[in-house]
Amino acid sequence: GRPFVLVAGPCVIEDYTGVMQIARSLKEITKRLDIPFIFKASYDKANRTSIDSFRGPGIKQGLEILSEIGLELDVAVMSDVHSPSEAELAAEVLDVLQIPAFLCRQTDLIVAAARTNRPLNIKKGQFLAPWDMDHVAKKARSAGNPQVLLTERGASFGYNNLVADFRSIPIMQSLGCPVIFDATHSVQLPGGAGGASAGQRQFAPILAKAAIAAGADGLFLEVHPEPDKALSDGPNSIRLDELEPLLNQLKAINNALIKPERNP
Amino acid sequence: GRPFVLVAGPCVIEDYTGVMQIARSLKEITKRLDIPFIFKASYDKANRTSIDSFRGPGIKQGLEILSEIGLELDVAVMSDVHSPSEAELAAEVLDVLQIPAFLCRQTDLIVAAARTNRPLNIKKGQFLAPWDMDHVAKKARSAGNPQVLLTERGASFGYNNLVADFRSIPIMQSLGCPVIFDATHSVQLPGGAGGASAGQRQFAPILAKAAIAAGADGLFLEVHPEPDKALSDGPNSIRLDELEPLLNQLKAINNALIKPERNP
Amino acid sequence: GRPFVLVAGPCVIEDYTGVMQIARSLKEITKRLDIPFIFKASYDKANRTSIDSFRGPGIKQGLEILSEIGLELDVAVMSDVHSPSEAELAAEVLDVLQIPAFLCRQTDLIVAAARTNRPLNIKKGQFLAPWDMDHVAKKARSAGNPQVLLTERGASFGYNNLVADFRSIPIMQSLGCPVIFDATHSVQLPGGAGGASAGQRQFAPILAKAAIAAGADGLFLEVHPEPDKALSDGPNSIRLDELEPLLNQLKAINNALIKPERNP
Amino acid sequence: GRPFVLVAGPCVIEDYTGVMQIARSLKEITKRLDIPFIFKASYDKANRTSIDSFRGPGIKQGLEILSEIGLELDVAVMSDVHSPSEAELAAEVLDVLQIPAFLCRQTDLIVAAARTNRPLNIKKGQFLAPWDMDHVAKKARSAGNPQVLLTERGASFGYNNLVADFRSIPIMQSLGCPVIFDATHSVQLPGGAGGASAGQRQFAPILAKAAIAAGADGLFLEVHPEPDKALSDGPNSIRLDELEPLLNQLKAINNALIKPERNP
Repeated sequence: GRPFVLVAGPCVIEDYTGVMQIARSLKEITKRLDIPFIFKASYDKANRTSIDSFRGPGIKQGLEILSEIGLELDVAVMSDVHSPSEAELAAEVLDVLQIPAFLCRQTDLIVAAARTNRPLNIKKGQFLAPWDMDHVAKKARSAGNPQVLLTERGASFGYNNLVADFRSIPIMQSLGCPVIFDATHSVQLPGGAGGASAGQRQFAPILAKAAIAAGADGLFLEVHPEPDKALSDGPNSIRLDELEPLLNQLKAINNALIKPERNP
Repeated sequence: GRPFVLVAGPCVIEDYTGVMQIARSLKEITKRLDIPFIFKASYDKANRTSIDSFRGPGIKQGLEILSEIGLELDVAVMSDVHSPSEAELAAEVLDVLQIPAFLCRQTDLIVAAARTNRPLNIKKGQFLAPWDMDHVAKKARSAGNPQVLLTERGASFGYNNLVADFRSIPIMQSLGCPVIFDATHSVQLPGGAGGASAGQRQFAPILAKAAIAAGADGLFLEVHPEPDKALSDGPNSIRLDELEPLLNQLKAINNALIKPERNP
Repeated sequence: GRPFVLVAGPCVIEDYTGVMQIARSLKEITKRLDIPFIFKASYDKANRTSIDSFRGPGIKQGLEILSEIGLELDVAVMSDVHSPSEAELAAEVLDVLQIPAFLCRQTDLIVAAARTNRPLNIKKGQFLAPWDMDHVAKKARSAGNPQVLLTERGASFGYNNLVADFRSIPIMQSLGCPVIFDATHSVQLPGGAGGASAGQRQFAPILAKAAIAAGADGLFLEVHPEPDKALSDGPNSIRLDELEPLLNQLKAINNALIKPERNP
Repeated sequence: GRPFVLVAGPCVIEDYTGVMQIARSLKEITKRLDIPFIFKASYDKANRTSIDSFRGPGIKQGLEILSEIGLELDVAVMSDVHSPSEAELAAEVLDVLQIPAFLCRQTDLIVAAARTNRPLNIKKGQFLAPWDMDHVAKKARSAGNPQVLLTERGASFGYNNLVADFRSIPIMQSLGCPVIFDATHSVQLPGGAGGASAGQRQFAPILAKAAIAAGADGLFLEVHPEPDKALSDGPNSIRLDELEPLLNQLKAINNALIKPERNP
């Protein structure tokens, strides 16, 4: 099969040194394995469960750090944007703008992000069907931007639980968009830990393997050197030192697939 | 039982004359029936399914119209706010600020809205459990605003469907907030009509009656003189001329209830 | 509104004296309140979560006890049937045969139960849509039995949780069947206590009130003098001494409704 | 990885010649690919949506046909059992007894099937969590039968839809049972075609690939030479002539996996 893209990084930028180290490790691993790589970390977690949660360095300092990562390591960088004005600022630095799942229906945000002409990665809301993303993608295209990636990150399944429906991969691909599977947010248990989301880190590698086998064009993984100490999404992050063996597995599965070439 | 509040209006402000007429009718009906009333209409539908959908007059003109409705008819007015800057503007006119369901986890929006010291009505996200709203309410309270109402408007139930879980009424009341049941959005079929949401208008009165019986403190109803011609949410709006008989029913049910007095 | 029927009793027949006492109390209460009453208790819990759970006295002794209750108290009696041969035996004693929710798609069971010419109460499977019950009811009618009641007892909502969708009441009524709302099974948390189902007894009265307001033709309530000591379904059973005040509430709500008369 | 087992066949035995031909083709294909194979077809579809649906030849004739298939082709045969008495009869012929999903909580059926000492394949009810199957498996083990396979066939996801949750594979494996993924029932849309279930045949191969990548021990596929003419489950059956290329894909994925050896 054609290669898949890896989007990875810590959930949130905790500090300059730490995030640079993670990015460097990821760059080395993906270079070694010849896997196309996009670094992703948030500068602002705008929708944490609780008011007391860590949110990140903010857009100004965050974009500076991401810019440095991009330049120093020669990697593409991606981050979340939360408002039209953020989209414009972020587009000066980021290679890909990501629209968070809760915000995937906010028309002005999508149009503003699309108008930057950066590729967009739009995460499917937990409350949407895969085919509903057709209208979301069209909002971006109507603003003149055809570079739309869609991400599956789990659908609401009762309370405090998500389920990853792998039918969404071919369904969203049929909308004309490459599809990324977000293996670590899909194992979140939203609100499952009271004032925070719990997670089932142990299932992320299994869902990642399933997604590659199901034909996903890319994979998103939150990675942290010490997930239990992470300031956000630790419970569903993958340990950095477990990434390379997992990617080896994923490459082997991907190589086993007979995937049609995607037209440009 | 103590009286319930009615929040009602057309989904979106279509034009001055139309919305004023609806507001006047609602005022007359609720005055006749002695039901506390808040008028609600959106000035901007920021998250329509499709890019081509009608969005409303925008915040400037919309707030002017709402202001006039409030003054001329002596009714409280409520509308949705979508960003911190909107919240400040809107608070100059509105009696209650509403946080849309998709945005109920956006910390900055809730904090900014709370800081206006207007009462907030926060709609529970379709992707949240009722107890998850505790953290949402706390975001508002942490900003010094204790006047938080919570609204149930249905939870994601598979694709393109919502289900109203009436356990959420006592659960959210136990968080110390009055609870409004949104009977018309709860019968939406999100994305169920392709480029728009479908709806099951016929079930809204039944769910409204159930909600009052379940002890809801208030009821939200989208009302339109001709729902089939409405520019938004027509499929789930109630006909204006069917409102008074319904409210009579709801009052009778409410009167049949032995409801404990709410402490101030 | 026309009166609603109460179906009530302990989940399972624990012993002769106990079940007779409960039945007598229920008869007295419903007579006092002039509420049509059907006594229901299971002689065999054929699908308990765990192999070690109490199952009841079995069909032979169970039917004898139910027969005596019917005769001595002059009440209609109902119980679950699990196989075609059970249906024939049970029909000699029971006034209404109930098809358990898990078994509502077993064609032979429904046909055999229908052929006894006893009225059937078929519980909607947790895995079915309300409109799916049309085919279930038709299986009974095709066997020549038009007396079919349908019961809503909650739909699967993620794992270990059920949600009561009140749209199902008018939908299943539109299939030509009276609809009973099972307020105590609807608050089960299936498997929620490991080797047993947990329950949220506190929500049963609220859902019961909502169901009557939504137009249910009847109500099912598991009742036990000491739910915490019940051998089955204690966590979701209503206390016997709390039943009369609840029924008073339900009657008041029902009286407040303008219900169309049901055609015979 | 260690090899996976294929369980396959037409949904129901339509006629002797047809089913023998399918079985022969499956035997040849799996022999060619060196994939362990169990033939499965139902002799009685006891829970069809509608009373008018085709049910199969019945247990007597059905078991004769399955016996002949087993002997003539030297393949293991499996079929559904629906009652304790069926289990005893069927055990004389079948190599594996299957408990249908709707019946997975019927204690007597599981105990009777377990007592035959045939391996059991128990399908997880659409209304159960994966961990709930622990109690189901224990019912079989308590009857002295440790040979329990568990099958994931989709969980209820709103109305008329199922979702395959791949977390269930490792969760049910952790209960000490090999886990089969049923790729064709998982793409059923139950009741989705009015008087019958609809299906999304096109997604079955994708879910099958995902399941193997997720570590499933076996795969179940309904296969028919002409699915559009099948008398049951045509909409979700795989075409016989598409099976071999799919199995080649699945083998390649399985070979790419580093699977720990299962202890006997």
